[in-house]
Amino acid sequence: MQVSVIVIGDELLLGQVIDTNSGDIARHIAPYGWEVNDVQTVGDDAVEISRAIDRAFRLSDVVLTTGGLGPTKDDITKGVLRDYFGGELVEDASVLENVRDIVSRRGFSLNKLTAAQAIVPTSCRVIQNRVGTAPVMWFEKDGKILVAMPGVPFETREMFQSEVFPQLRDRYDSDIDIEHAVLMVTDYTESALAEKIASWEDALPPYFHLAYLPKPGLIRLRIDGAHADKAFIKSEVNRASEELKEMLGDAVIADDDLSPAEILLAECRRRGLLLATAESCTGGNIAHELTLVPGSSDVFVGSVVAYSNEVKTGLLGVSKKTLADCGAVSVEVVREMAEGALAVTGAQISIATSGIAGPGGGSEDKPVGTVCISVAVSSACGLTVCEAERHYFPGNRGRVIDASTTRGLIRGIKLLRRLDADV
Amino acid sequence: MQVSVIVIGDELLLGQVIDTNSGDIARHIAPYGWEVNDVQTVGDDAVEISRAIDRAFRLSDVVLTTGGLGPTKDDITKGVLRDYFGGELVEDASVLENVRDIVSRRGFSLNKLTAAQAIVPTSCRVIQNRVGTAPVMWFEKDGKILVAMPGVPFETREMFQSEVFPQLRDRYDSDIDIEHAVLMVTDYTESALAEKIASWEDALPPYFHLAYLPKPGLIRLRIDGAHADKAFIKSEVNRASEELKEMLGDAVIADDDLSPAEILLAECRRRGLLLATAESCTGGNIAHELTLVPGSSDVFVGSVVAYSNEVKTGLLGVSKKTLADCGAVSVEVVREMAEGALAVTGAQISIATSGIAGPGGGSEDKPVGTVCISVAVSSACGLTVCEAERHYFPGNRGRVIDASTTRGLIRGIKLLRRLDADV
Repeated sequence: MQVSVIVIGDELLLGQVIDTNSGDIARHIAPYGWEVNDVQTVGDDAVEISRAIDRAFRLSDVVLTTGGLGPTKDDITKGVLRDYFGGELVEDASVLENVRDIVSRRGFSLNKLTAAQAIVPTSCRVIQNRVGTAPVMWFEKDGKILVAMPGVPFETREMFQSEVFPQLRDRYDSDIDIEHAVLMVTDYTESALAEKIASWEDALPPYFHLAYLPKPGLIRLRIDGAHADKAFIKSEVNRASEELKEMLGDAVIADDDLSPAEILLAECRRRGLLLATAESCTGGNIAHELTLVPGSSDVFVGSVVAYSNEVKTGLLGVSKKTLADCGAVSVEVVREMAEGALAVTGAQISIATSGIAGPGGGSEDKPVGTVCISVAVSSACGLTVCEAERHYFPGNRGRVIDASTTRGLIRGIKLLRRLDADV
Repeated sequence: MQVSVIVIGDELLLGQVIDTNSGDIARHIAPYGWEVNDVQTVGDDAVEISRAIDRAFRLSDVVLTTGGLGPTKDDITKGVLRDYFGGELVEDASVLENVRDIVSRRGFSLNKLTAAQAIVPTSCRVIQNRVGTAPVMWFEKDGKILVAMPGVPFETREMFQSEVFPQLRDRYDSDIDIEHAVLMVTDYTESALAEKIASWEDALPPYFHLAYLPKPGLIRLRIDGAHADKAFIKSEVNRASEELKEMLGDAVIADDDLSPAEILLAECRRRGLLLATAESCTGGNIAHELTLVPGSSDVFVGSVVAYSNEVKTGLLGVSKKTLADCGAVSVEVVREMAEGALAVTGAQISIATSGIAGPGGGSEDKPVGTVCISVAVSSACGLTVCEAERHYFPGNRGRVIDASTTRGLIRGIKLLRRLDADV
């Protein structure tokens, strides 16, 4: 099934807000063989919105809109939909009840603007929004369906996944099965990876599609297979994934769509290790990535973000002499930071970073993008293995921080696996 | 000038990558009175790409494409553009030279796939990509312009801002001046803010446009004014902004598009204060937001991410009795965390958080979303002011972390300003 998405809001065309809803929708429907074949972004403009609906209906039987349903004057989508599908705008008692509930759960009282969310076109069927005040509206015309959803990402996601998509699936069925596999690949640039697997890729049967999805320090390699025979395509995708793993060896850090933080937490959990970080240039971002993962608290104990040298010496026990002799951005200092983190937090594995994220602070010897990373692991017998290396990550401040974060997590994963292999 | 943007890549329709390029472009051109009036997202499909170009040229004289120019097989845009604009695909010596430079600066040697980036249609004028291997291609047809740019966000941004947009501006001029002002507003929900300023908003002249851009815990209120008379619209926008500030009082934490982290760092810098954080539920995200700001190191000294109770007691000196009596998520514990952060880092202002980000860990008394935040400030005379409050932020884990981060930063800003006012 092909779906068209219309993303509505001046703030999107102005670039003040980034659309994440169309991507959320696409990712959610892909495993069912449904596809987004068109995304249009339009402003809060009646002519543009209805033109976009016309075009979407020409391409697809199912059209999803997100946004433009807020309580303020700039949001006009509801009126446009009334004009497009007919009917009258009337207050719906069950929606009003729902809006009052939502608002009171948030600790506010209902004001006039928010109450107006309960006014909906008579031409739609309402799906109550359990997590926000804008109702979801389901319209049908000439055998086609348009569902208007709010634009706040967590509301869209929640309502689409729990209500809208299940109801759409009840209406349509697909006779093509889609299977996919994802490998998380490190150590290669996009082009080096493509070259490495070129002859294998050339020989892929036509029911496969291979996509390279690079992130700083990591490539997600996605294999999609589409076929009427579910068992066949499942085994084929599995075979392709195994072949790639064989070819790429330990550059494949996971055969599922997991973040490096999720992989590292699982590796620590499996070994009963507690994890800590000691961060200078990453400024807490490794800790943040780790704590974004639900349930991380059984493994991750904490971090010392040692931005100033005083915190490096005072809280992590880095020696002043090492700082003076080698500089804060050095393998010697990150090594002491990693070991200090183990000592002060009681963790058994730690990741430490120190680098120059820029834009200032670079020198000829240590240009912006120079980052030292260390991983320390202490074993049950009290022995500590500590690795440290100097890296160079090009790009602006945010990119240096992101790349250092990913590399730090990957180094942790790889060291744990290597220690196992060494035993 | 109206611009159409075409964002190319299967990974976008699959939702594996989120388009940030169209937003970057829109934000960059807005101050010059240029607008993105249409964004189309299409897959790596020749028919779809050329149909999107047709449509874009019907709407706009300038069309920008991003993506689909990578070295791997799934990227086909260059061939489509050759077919669309004519000419032959030939290797361009200057591009090859540039690609070789870029690759060697990254510490790699040139492979065949990457070398193929130098093959470009003869119908385009090349703009050398200083930060990546895919050349920027400028095509013209029937008085209209299409510029194809790579899709990697930092490459798009760099090349668009430094080369493509300046060259486009040389070709077109605008006789309408655009001025805008942004206010960062706290303490209001979107609808409460709209109600508060409803009569003022109703009376706005037609050359104004007001947009509400909510983020967790914060609303960006943007006033755009468009007029042929530059001096007039500048003074009008300024007047509107002053009127709003008067109406909203200290709920306006900045009259520029600054993040709470940028505002807090500036407030600390102005007072000569060093800043630290002690984070449990925010897991380093406050430190991360602060350290994303260039130059933050002169103010921000570091953080203790105290995820486990052992780190709270061991590194921050939180008393075991307080933890046992009040629980880790309590105003008493965050208060001790904030004071502990001052003591161990030598900072003069600290922000501490402890809460239940979910999905697990909630109770009837302290449901998921319960977060305690404390801010401590020590004055020159050794006296410490320490505030702590319990908050409730609805939503999923990421949202609770984001909202707590923003609120913590805002509480820091407000406490500093209140202390000034009290003097």
